[in-house]
Amino acid sequence: MAKPLILVTNDDGITAPGLRSLIHIMNEIGDVVVVAPDSPQSGMGHAITISDTLYCKKEKIDDGPQVEYSISGTPADCVKFAIRKILDRKPDLCVSGINHGANSSINVVYSGTMSAAVEAGLEGIKSIGFSLLDYSWDADFAPCKEYIRKISLSLLSEKKQNLILNVNFPSKTKTFKGIKVCRQAKGYWEDTYDKRISPLGKEYYWLTGTFINQDKSEETDEWALSKGYVSIVPVSFDMTSYEDISNIENWNLN
Amino acid sequence: MAKPLILVTNDDGITAPGLRSLIHIMNEIGDVVVVAPDSPQSGMGHAITISDTLYCKKEKIDDGPQVEYSISGTPADCVKFAIRKILDRKPDLCVSGINHGANSSINVVYSGTMSAAVEAGLEGIKSIGFSLLDYSWDADFAPCKEYIRKISLSLLSEKKQNLILNVNFPSKTKTFKGIKVCRQAKGYWEDTYDKRISPLGKEYYWLTGTFINQDKSEETDEWALSKGYVSIVPVSFDMTSYEDISNIENWNLN
Repeated sequence: MAKPLILVTNDDGITAPGLRSLIHIMNEIGDVVVVAPDSPQSGMGHAITISDTLYCKKEKIDDGPQVEYSISGTPADCVKFAIRKILDRKPDLCVSGINHGANSSINVVYSGTMSAAVEAGLEGIKSIGFSLLDYSWDADFAPCKEYIRKISLSLLSEKKQNLILNVNFPSKTKTFKGIKVCRQAKGYWEDTYDKRISPLGKEYYWLTGTFINQDKSEETDEWALSKGYVSIVPVSFDMTSYEDISNIENWNLN
Repeated sequence: MAKPLILVTNDDGITAPGLRSLIHIMNEIGDVVVVAPDSPQSGMGHAITISDTLYCKKEKIDDGPQVEYSISGTPADCVKFAIRKILDRKPDLCVSGINHGANSSINVVYSGTMSAAVEAGLEGIKSIGFSLLDYSWDADFAPCKEYIRKISLSLLSEKKQNLILNVNFPSKTKTFKGIKVCRQAKGYWEDTYDKRISPLGKEYYWLTGTFINQDKSEETDEWALSKGYVSIVPVSFDMTSYEDISNIENWNLN
């Protein structure tokens, strides 16, 4: 049987250690093509480049068997470009990450890592975004390896084609308690803006903030991660709020 | 009774005619504060600015009663900054648009217009993204006016606080057949990359594409718009695919 074709991308950029770890894991599973941003793209959400040009460059970053390209765009751009211009057939799997930092709860809407997975999902490609709850560049991704392998192989064996998974790993541990399949916790960022003055005397701001979890349910990714479990949230790109349709129909707008 | 406080933003930038039309309509309903990007931000999805600085500038663009600020960031940045730094209380409504171009179907995930509405919704603010299916800068927004007014007033009167609406107007008509409350049609963009050569001989690409509607159901926004109706899709920021949870639990990952 032919090896699966695996598209690997991320949002921290093609040189990020989390991406390099993910490539090594995927090389043991299939034929790997990497198409990743040439610069960090965190917080880019599902941005695509429509008002600017895109460059694509062949890369050779380590001595693995994977084929690599960098793109001067967003994670969603990378997936689109890979499918239309680089790959000669539809990949069997698209994996994105391993992100340096959490993409649990509401972070899914801000996440470049997850936008790549969603973009692949839109194209009918099975996909997974992997994230470790550790923002440091030298985070230890080794404990994630066996879990990533197991989840990826399970998804490759799954009959349903349209599955997008958001997988988060707790940090500060070498061993995880296991895996929980969850829903996205309800939460938001309590933003703060750090005001500074430029050398020319102009005010500017840096966005920072604290994540607020409004959802204590044991069915959520936040709960699972806080207890030391790896969380898997299946993701949908249908953003319709079905429960509100009949309510709005009762407004009698016509 | 105090007039409602209305936050107005968009993704085409603070000078866009669609935004100016929306401001004029909102001035008849409440006290308007405009916080909009200083440059076009189409296709930015739910991007936020975390690796760069933000500037905020007070603006006076026309002689209306609204207060206006421009931000050197994305639509989601504008909403966050407005709530944390500009407004002295939580707005009663946030409206985004009128976008020059469609945000129906899967465009909701790429849309800066809708990301602003979703960001407000995350904060518990009722919100609406308005879009006209006409990309031209001199599109005629006049036929939308009464509909925007009616939908906004209905949402302001609604008991439920957490409602986000994605409203699209068909183009090429002066009269609409009425309003349909819909679900998001299933569709995707068949992308093409237009390859060009720079003056220095370097290859670069422009993303273009054609929207493919995979969903012929009469319950969808695409159907409603194709028949001349204004579409309203209630939007959720819970991206969990609930129907897939039990399936993945059956993988026996533990």
